[in-house]
Amino acid sequence: MPETMSFRESANLLNTISSPADVKALPVEAMPQLASEIRGELIRVLSNTGGHLGPNLGVVELTLALHRVFETPKDKFLFDVSHQGYVHKLLTGRRERFPSIRQYEGLNGFLLRTESEHDCYGAGHAGTALSAALGMAAARDMLGGDEHVVCVAGDAAFTCGVSYEALNNVASTTKRLIIVLNDNEWSIAKNVGAIAEYLSRLVASPAYAHLHDKAAKFVEWIAGKGARKLAHKAEVGLKNLLAPSVIFEDLGIRYYGPIDGHDVALLIETFEFLKTQNDPVILHILTQKGKGYAPALEKPDKFHGLGKFHLDTGETVASPTPTYSELLGTSLANFADHNNKIAAITAAMPTGTGLVGFAKRHPDRFFDVGIAEEHAALFACGLAAQGMKPFLAIYSTFMQRAFDMILHDLALQNLNVALCMDRAGLSGDDGPTHHGLFDIGYLRPIPGIIHMQPKDEEEFVDMLWTMVNHHAGPIAIRYPRGAGTGAVPRKQPQLLEVGKSEVLRHGSKAAIIALGNMCELALEAAATLEQSGVSTAVINARWIKPLDTSMIEFFARGCEVVCTMEDHVLHNGFGSAVVEHLSDQNIKTPVVRIGWPDQFIEHGTVPILRAKHGLTAAATVQKILAALPVKTSESVQPAA
Amino acid sequence: MPETMSFRESANLLNTISSPADVKALPVEAMPQLASEIRGELIRVLSNTGGHLGPNLGVVELTLALHRVFETPKDKFLFDVSHQGYVHKLLTGRRERFPSIRQYEGLNGFLLRTESEHDCYGAGHAGTALSAALGMAAARDMLGGDEHVVCVAGDAAFTCGVSYEALNNVASTTKRLIIVLNDNEWSIAKNVGAIAEYLSRLVASPAYAHLHDKAAKFVEWIAGKGARKLAHKAEVGLKNLLAPSVIFEDLGIRYYGPIDGHDVALLIETFEFLKTQNDPVILHILTQKGKGYAPALEKPDKFHGLGKFHLDTGETVASPTPTYSELLGTSLANFADHNNKIAAITAAMPTGTGLVGFAKRHPDRFFDVGIAEEHAALFACGLAAQGMKPFLAIYSTFMQRAFDMILHDLALQNLNVALCMDRAGLSGDDGPTHHGLFDIGYLRPIPGIIHMQPKDEEEFVDMLWTMVNHHAGPIAIRYPRGAGTGAVPRKQPQLLEVGKSEVLRHGSKAAIIALGNMCELALEAAATLEQSGVSTAVINARWIKPLDTSMIEFFARGCEVVCTMEDHVLHNGFGSAVVEHLSDQNIKTPVVRIGWPDQFIEHGTVPILRAKHGLTAAATVQKILAALPVKTSESVQPAA
Repeated sequence: MPETMSFRESANLLNTISSPADVKALPVEAMPQLASEIRGELIRVLSNTGGHLGPNLGVVELTLALHRVFETPKDKFLFDVSHQGYVHKLLTGRRERFPSIRQYEGLNGFLLRTESEHDCYGAGHAGTALSAALGMAAARDMLGGDEHVVCVAGDAAFTCGVSYEALNNVASTTKRLIIVLNDNEWSIAKNVGAIAEYLSRLVASPAYAHLHDKAAKFVEWIAGKGARKLAHKAEVGLKNLLAPSVIFEDLGIRYYGPIDGHDVALLIETFEFLKTQNDPVILHILTQKGKGYAPALEKPDKFHGLGKFHLDTGETVASPTPTYSELLGTSLANFADHNNKIAAITAAMPTGTGLVGFAKRHPDRFFDVGIAEEHAALFACGLAAQGMKPFLAIYSTFMQRAFDMILHDLALQNLNVALCMDRAGLSGDDGPTHHGLFDIGYLRPIPGIIHMQPKDEEEFVDMLWTMVNHHAGPIAIRYPRGAGTGAVPRKQPQLLEVGKSEVLRHGSKAAIIALGNMCELALEAAATLEQSGVSTAVINARWIKPLDTSMIEFFARGCEVVCTMEDHVLHNGFGSAVVEHLSDQNIKTPVVRIGWPDQFIEHGTVPILRAKHGLTAAATVQKILAALPVKTSESVQPAA
Repeated sequence: MPETMSFRESANLLNTISSPADVKALPVEAMPQLASEIRGELIRVLSNTGGHLGPNLGVVELTLALHRVFETPKDKFLFDVSHQGYVHKLLTGRRERFPSIRQYEGLNGFLLRTESEHDCYGAGHAGTALSAALGMAAARDMLGGDEHVVCVAGDAAFTCGVSYEALNNVASTTKRLIIVLNDNEWSIAKNVGAIAEYLSRLVASPAYAHLHDKAAKFVEWIAGKGARKLAHKAEVGLKNLLAPSVIFEDLGIRYYGPIDGHDVALLIETFEFLKTQNDPVILHILTQKGKGYAPALEKPDKFHGLGKFHLDTGETVASPTPTYSELLGTSLANFADHNNKIAAITAAMPTGTGLVGFAKRHPDRFFDVGIAEEHAALFACGLAAQGMKPFLAIYSTFMQRAFDMILHDLALQNLNVALCMDRAGLSGDDGPTHHGLFDIGYLRPIPGIIHMQPKDEEEFVDMLWTMVNHHAGPIAIRYPRGAGTGAVPRKQPQLLEVGKSEVLRHGSKAAIIALGNMCELALEAAATLEQSGVSTAVINARWIKPLDTSMIEFFARGCEVVCTMEDHVLHNGFGSAVVEHLSDQNIKTPVVRIGWPDQFIEHGTVPILRAKHGLTAAATVQKILAALPVKTSESVQPAA
């Protein structure tokens, strides 16, 4: 077998791949070795950079098969969420830059249209790929193109309503669309809900036992004989062989599967068959998240996405102090011990939001609804309407999905729901799809919703306590990723007065009104200003809504410059609220607003990006000094 | 039959109904007469007030049956969208106030928790009821209650992703929930998509022929013999009789139906059976939208929701000039005649958004995706990624559903999609669920999105033309309900310069920067001010983003007061953008901001509500006069 030998002799096949054409040039038999090398590269690089290891280990063979059968950039691959796009990046000319993934100025951790012509659609939130793919297919049909559109979505994407909206429109929109349902039984956490049950029944059903083999032989028979023209005739039989009746068929989409998603040869043959079809099709493949790396197989939830880890053991370095997320879980669980109205809801993020601890202590009052933020918010409204006090823990960026429900259901009906907006502010490595920089923009216009941000962990728990005990109605708290200053929460949390800020430091010339995690930088800036002779007050704003207007007026009237600081975009941010109020009061003190500019912020570490975009103590000092009125009193004083 | 006679003799049964108990007190045989009287009342009242006639005519028997079998307020009825809740209002103590429906200070056109203890959940947007109902059922289970939760949703709600998210969670959440699928084949427009096809196959299937009778007899047999305890045993048989295998069953929800939704006795017996079940159930009923009123049966789309109409003919008075919506349809259709990249998308509102004309002229480039705003936005992104220029026409309030997609998919990828936000500003009669008062709040923080509002119809078409020919990237236009000033669009629309406002009237002392439909009021206010000796400029802002900053600076530096006017909430509105800019430039001219206050605005006519909340020329004049600096130059002039 000289051909087989030749690739085995190659020390490293992956080094020879600089485009999809190189993947095609290798014999099929080389694919397992290439797959193995890709897994090695993924594990090695990600142990340094962190990233979505598990999902990518699961789609190595799938991605190889796709690139052998189809031709990007002409053909279109849409990866749902696109955190599983690393293998695609490795095969499309980004091997050399791969060690830079998720690093500042390096490759993004998701697909990006601006990063490669092979990335036809970017993402970072789940459930978007199928709709976008359908749009591309429709455009192709209208414009008379012949490219293939392939959408790869995990089983978790099918807990997401918009995927269903798309499924509902497929049959009436196009005759040519290939959907790959990558079923690994794990989305981020273990998948939940009826569709997960249903898919597992499909897989477990005796009727489907040994289907892999049957399907393999059948497809081999079709493809092996080059009998593509027979495919049309055969498809009915194939369909029945594979799955006599499923939801997808009821929605007018031909269903094939389930087949082994780690069998490259089978995948290749199946895609060759599917690309001849003149009907929208869905191929159900079974894969293992974390395949090829024991630590990832053992802890699929952890290895869905993580930071640096030890190559051999998979161990990661824990934060020395509990993160905000962890504090949320333990605090709510503690409160719930003595309050049977508290319930907690997550949208497929029990670990990410820290609710996993709550789930263990109060399983009957914990709900993981899947990647279904809209339902989560409405479900919380239903609970609240009946007297429960639900806490909905969702990342700020994902809460955007529930915006209409927050406005139309929660706020308009003044229901007693608490929104816990994790990862508010810059998320860092994950980049623009994950930064939580917009929640003040979309929450503040909504009447009657209270919104706050703590300066540290101690205040965070006090705020949670206040949400439970002091307030009925819509209330939201935003807090950043990871840990804060490390301030240890009190044993018995304190109630905070709604709308009352906290003066951290007195001063007479400048006043910095800082929101949440910006208080640290504000204190730093104030110390520097003091050294320059500018007496500077620092106020921990605490409340975005209601604003502490008397505090604002007091300092704006008493100081020569007011500065606002926030981990949010400047347009419609916290500073805007302050400026609105000062304008309404006709107070003319100059205002410096520190926050994120009106552009999408790239990925990178928080310190790098803050420095680049001017969210530092030094930049704040400079801007405050520049805004201070010229000291006319000195300049006009007559010489002695 | 004396009992039958007694109710026939009653001149008016409806007059005897002041609570659900009164419905129960009547014999079952009286229900058809009561239904007929209710229909008469609906038609008579709505011919004066306007409203959702068709949907309510379709649910008369359903609502009667629900109130006979269940006990509100203890039991919970959730009506999806709740525009079909008029019959429920008539039966729950609101008969006398019914002629005030949709009038200022009268009954709301939707259910409201604050209006009646029988309204456990309000709505105005589709697809929310099932999730909220599931939340209520879960709360009941946690708190140990025994009330029933009944969710009534039209077939259109099942084109909506969030309904599916809820369905996916039903089986794992509760054992007791009754879902009524009210299938009238018409949502607002004719229902679209695979689920509609699927439901019609269920109904049309020979296996289901004459099922009504069979089901009737079977349920009668169960109920008639008082054999509730047999029900559990019987249910398997019943289920198989009714529907051997459907999507809902695959999701773990027992399916019953389809049955005749206008047969009160059958409905009552069926609900008596369903309330004994210890599994979540879905009952598929078939109803006729507009039943009992010929004009509504003939034009179900028109009679879904409409203004005043002639009682006998169903005729309505058309607007003397085309509405903005109509202009959208005709303009886009005209442009598309010469531009094969233009496509148009609606989310179940082909008539409401005016796209019905486009659909006729360019059926291949028109997409009605159902009540699926999220999918609609992503589908548009997919079209744009492949070189099309899609126009997405959705009411401002419903666009809230697509907020995350506008940010994460459209803007972040800088795709060439146009958002046409109809009913922006106060919607009037429909009330707080429909006011489009928040779109500047949620769009302006998003980097790279252009946003504008025309002062009249002529400018509207110029703006649409500009969207087609002058700009690539995310762009949004907001425009109010109905017609504007009636300004006739040019034959050949003009390109507008992005970010350039229009001075409508010069002035030196005050400057009113008015957005869109506020220009009329601004001119009126300026004329009054002029009479008081205050020379007032009026600027048509045109662009919310990018702001015309040089115009703002020019007038703010030159005048003594600046006033902004907008049909939007003041928090994070257009005026905030102006104030932000002036603050950044350290320009200290006082600013008066006219717009909607930070509270949910009730229903009523636009003039009434504007007068109440200070959006009038007179209020503007007053505030501008109050903000003008005291004329110190006169007061300090020494007497001669």
